[in-house]
Amino acid sequence: MNKTDISAHFRDLQLHICQALEQLDGLATFNEDTWERQEGGGGHTRTLQGGLILEKAGVAFSAVHGPVTAAMKQQLGHEGERFFATGVSIVLHPKHPQHPIMHMNVRYFELEDSNYWFGGGIDLTPHYVDLEKATAFHTSLKEVSDRYDTSFYPKFKEWADRYFFLPHRGESRGVGGIFFDQLDESCGLSKDQLFAYCQDLGRLFPVVYTQQVEGVVLQEPTAAELAWQALRRGRYVEFNLLHDRGTKFGIYSGGRTESILMSLPPIANWVYNHEPAENSEEQKTLSFLRATHDFC
Amino acid sequence: MNKTDISAHFRDLQLHICQALEQLDGLATFNEDTWERQEGGGGHTRTLQGGLILEKAGVAFSAVHGPVTAAMKQQLGHEGERFFATGVSIVLHPKHPQHPIMHMNVRYFELEDSNYWFGGGIDLTPHYVDLEKATAFHTSLKEVSDRYDTSFYPKFKEWADRYFFLPHRGESRGVGGIFFDQLDESCGLSKDQLFAYCQDLGRLFPVVYTQQVEGVVLQEPTAAELAWQALRRGRYVEFNLLHDRGTKFGIYSGGRTESILMSLPPIANWVYNHEPAENSEEQKTLSFLRATHDFC
Repeated sequence: MNKTDISAHFRDLQLHICQALEQLDGLATFNEDTWERQEGGGGHTRTLQGGLILEKAGVAFSAVHGPVTAAMKQQLGHEGERFFATGVSIVLHPKHPQHPIMHMNVRYFELEDSNYWFGGGIDLTPHYVDLEKATAFHTSLKEVSDRYDTSFYPKFKEWADRYFFLPHRGESRGVGGIFFDQLDESCGLSKDQLFAYCQDLGRLFPVVYTQQVEGVVLQEPTAAELAWQALRRGRYVEFNLLHDRGTKFGIYSGGRTESILMSLPPIANWVYNHEPAENSEEQKTLSFLRATHDFC
Repeated sequence: MNKTDISAHFRDLQLHICQALEQLDGLATFNEDTWERQEGGGGHTRTLQGGLILEKAGVAFSAVHGPVTAAMKQQLGHEGERFFATGVSIVLHPKHPQHPIMHMNVRYFELEDSNYWFGGGIDLTPHYVDLEKATAFHTSLKEVSDRYDTSFYPKFKEWADRYFFLPHRGESRGVGGIFFDQLDESCGLSKDQLFAYCQDLGRLFPVVYTQQVEGVVLQEPTAAELAWQALRRGRYVEFNLLHDRGTKFGIYSGGRTESILMSLPPIANWVYNHEPAENSEEQKTLSFLRATHDFC
């Protein structure tokens, strides 16, 4: 499994996910933007807006290469003059506040055909936490992870709890998920197995999102629900711009702005010192996000 | 003029500005939140929402002190074990897209009663650039600055052009203004004079904002204007969370989140790869922001 195969499979994964999401949405379809990177490589950024279920969605594929920059050197902790990186990134912002935001990223990184590693993450950000849905989400991640190594889920779940956290708010971004980086053969699995793990996570994504949406009985959203959704989207923006390593690295190192910031939501709002009413659904969600939880 | 005097005058300045803005708005009034900082000092954060002219405004005063932290040491470039910092920060987000966003900050910093300096900045972010209004704004800043030192305006205007810039967008945040930091007696003015400069800038703020708003003939905003305002507010969020030194320093060093992020707008939006129509007012503004301009 070389870098060309991996990026070809990631591109297929992107198309597969888009197709599944279009089917789920039932109305909107993805547009594709193809771009090239001056230093080498490029990508296909697929976005959708104004769907029945998805208000704004982005599914991006890229495969880029070139000389290792000073900024990259600092972050990598490995020697090497040239790099290759490929991956798929997804963020879904649903229209209805009772549907969750969901994110995924799987990526492969290689330094001069020697060192390589995989990284990835999936996390779920409900506007309103539903414990049953959160548990179903984590159970699916655990099932896929356990097929490869039973140490993966607990380790990567804890990593996600640390990573998808807003220290300045004392809040988790959502109900977590899994996060991993620099995963290579030293964990005991072959390169092919690690790649298969990433592929399985990618293929799980639309299945799991469909489960999250299925069975949620929707009424026309109330003004209070929409206001809360806009505030939670504001938190999502804060996380991505202040804390998310991928976003910051991409922006500061001159990555393609529109592909990086496709993760930002439609209609976000900031209200000074907003505190939800005692015992409201909004307050219950906030309390939940202020602690760490085990789901399975 | 010692630190106690300076912070007392800054607190007066805050109240003066709030009164002037309330008079301009004609409907909404400021609420005050008083807070204390565990390590020493505190502040009064004054916010307003839902005005006739101002949709969301924040005018914050703080006076904090304590041990110099490792993160501060790195940023300061001066030795000292204890610090004192006081200042006033303002951001106005108007309701109407034909009114501009405006920001100001004046601040005083002291290390162990020895080294001290002033810093500050005012900048104007119209949703639609009006060259006459931008020129009037810069002329006012130049007039006040020239009373102290004719080198201030050109130097601080250029500093603002560099500072209020989004490299990942290749755009200025707005039509600029002035920005300065570490201003002390080495510039040839006394501490009292430098403080008077900051005070004059502070008192200028509501006068200049009133000028910006006066004479703008308002119609009910169109859907296109509101959509553009939401996109420009998105850029404002990007600047503050990705680039603004004060915001990032405050957030990463454990400052009071709500006071720091009161600068964030109501209702911001992100649309993938948005480009305004050829020759539209939106496109003219965008072209203007993609270059640097001299106004006076």
